Amino acid sequence: MTDRSLEVRLASRPAGEPEAANFDVVETDMPSVGEGQALVRNVYMSVDPYMRGRMRDIQSYTPPFQIGKALDGGAVGVVEASNSDALAPGDLVSSRFGWRSHFAAPAVELQKIDTHGAPLSAFLGVLGMPGMTAYVGLLDIGEPKEGETVFVSAAAGAVGSLVGQIAKIKGCRAVGSAGSADKVAHLVSDLGYDAAFDYHGDLNRNLADTCPDGIDVYFENVGGPTLEAVFLHMNMFGRIPVCGMIAHYNDKEPRPGPKTLISIIPKRLKMQGFIVSDHMDRRADFVRDVAGWIAEGKVTYRQTIVSGLEKAPEAFMGLFRGENTGKMVVQVSDDPTQ
Amino acid sequence: MTDRSLEVRLASRPAGEPEAANFDVVETDMPSVGEGQALVRNVYMSVDPYMRGRMRDIQSYTPPFQIGKALDGGAVGVVEASNSDALAPGDLVSSRFGWRSHFAAPAVELQKIDTHGAPLSAFLGVLGMPGMTAYVGLLDIGEPKEGETVFVSAAAGAVGSLVGQIAKIKGCRAVGSAGSADKVAHLVSDLGYDAAFDYHGDLNRNLADTCPDGIDVYFENVGGPTLEAVFLHMNMFGRIPVCGMIAHYNDKEPRPGPKTLISIIPKRLKMQGFIVSDHMDRRADFVRDVAGWIAEGKVTYRQTIVSGLEKAPEAFMGLFRGENTGKMVVQVSDDPTQ
Repeated sequence: MTDRSLEVRLASRPAGEPEAANFDVVETDMPSVGEGQALVRNVYMSVDPYMRGRMRDIQSYTPPFQIGKALDGGAVGVVEASNSDALAPGDLVSSRFGWRSHFAAPAVELQKIDTHGAPLSAFLGVLGMPGMTAYVGLLDIGEPKEGETVFVSAAAGAVGSLVGQIAKIKGCRAVGSAGSADKVAHLVSDLGYDAAFDYHGDLNRNLADTCPDGIDVYFENVGGPTLEAVFLHMNMFGRIPVCGMIAHYNDKEPRPGPKTLISIIPKRLKMQGFIVSDHMDRRADFVRDVAGWIAEGKVTYRQTIVSGLEKAPEAFMGLFRGENTGKMVVQVSDDPTQ
Repeated sequence: MTDRSLEVRLASRPAGEPEAANFDVVETDMPSVGEGQALVRNVYMSVDPYMRGRMRDIQSYTPPFQIGKALDGGAVGVVEASNSDALAPGDLVSSRFGWRSHFAAPAVELQKIDTHGAPLSAFLGVLGMPGMTAYVGLLDIGEPKEGETVFVSAAAGAVGSLVGQIAKIKGCRAVGSAGSADKVAHLVSDLGYDAAFDYHGDLNRNLADTCPDGIDVYFENVGGPTLEAVFLHMNMFGRIPVCGMIAHYNDKEPRPGPKTLISIIPKRLKMQGFIVSDHMDRRADFVRDVAGWIAEGKVTYRQTIVSGLEKAPEAFMGLFRGENTGKMVVQVSDDPTQ
């Protein structure tokens, strides 16, 4: 245990794609531990596409990051000291205090983790927020029925990789798009997708080939040309849960929407945005189902782990260049479970 | 009763805005009346924006019109001769055989009308397909709650004029847009809208002024710049029933969608296309409620009646120039109820 702490601050707001100069890695004093608080050493922290939105000075469903202040986000760590009866040194906790090596926080703001034998880092991915996003978005918004076709963009990402596997468990045809030949192979070989293609190719042709019976549920992660092409292949009464539009997050000016949107009328489509935090009543179902599917070997997952808190900005920037397969995680310090 | 019949045929498919040359008015023999059939003299026929879609050679939820063949669409008429026990001369019927002065059809394809004292032409409007479109779109897709704000575009049209009145009956704030000062005045003075504006002005400013608490339900009839502006004013968990996008119907090439579409995610919006014919299970509820509201003076309606079958193409073209207030109807022959 050192007496210095590291944190990553927002130095300036990105214009377009984020770059290293938008971040500062700063050494600070180790935080003091108040009454009812615990001192936590972060072990893993999450970088997620939604954080790009918080770098804009716009009030949204989460408040914007402040320039000169440490960023935050999902993290898992180990308690090093505690002034609360609820937590003891050595306890594993998840928190919203990522982007720093250590922090002190009220014990009530920390969730104790029982890993049930799963790797600690999985609680930032398949068993964490991205996994639950896949679960509620597909099942509660998309409402897939047995025999239907589910198409997922960014299918090799943290969310998409679970969407396709749940679709298969529910008896659907699962089709995914991703940004490289390796990822496309991974979707079919490792994750059990029925078909997959590289989105850099002819979207229309690829959708026609891989979804010969049309698309009943499109799990939307990307926006842009993919969404425009998908409308042409949606079936009557199709559903489009809108999880993200990563292709737009670095736009300096908003770009036009899909010129195919009008097909929402004759095809009677439902398009619905959602945020995982609205669905916390489903958390117990999610953990039970997905932990069960992992134990039965029906769900597999990958993560891309980048080492060192100072590499967090780079890992974050890598999300927009598709450098991750599965969940992108930053290892901040030694994992006590390994 | 003459021995000649008139019908309007599609002469050629419009490119962009339809014009007179796209139509032919043709005299034909009076149709013969087969076993189980009735001969009907049309009294009123409907022209509706959705018909523009059927003039394209594209399979949609209704089949395309054929060049050289008579158009069809909603009509109400009177039985002149019958070879069926179900119908007698003098009976009033609604049918899908508009755009002609007379037709013979199986009695089972005709719906007998009891006007309950309402004008016959209303069964093409407030008590017909447009009225039911307003009813199911607002209530079943939009799900307005008391105290919410409902915004309606093309609010002086056949559908929109009823949407706002139902919104008021359900305890909502009703706001509408239309294309002229007269129509805007009509919305507030006659239909009871709380506020209204001309869509040719500053959409963003007008929406901010007329919907100070944001929009909970947007009843979408027009697409284009209105939809793009509306997204900026939608409230969290808002609903957008998509009934039509008349601004796009004459586009020669599909135009881009709203660049504000991405707000569907942080605002958790639901956008859903619908077609009234999917909701026929609600027909009894619709007729009971709307006929009741008319009788109680809670619902009023206007129609624009153009006289003469040969004027039907002109009446149809007028829809795209906003020449109607309320339902646009063509009177084909004398109304026996007047």
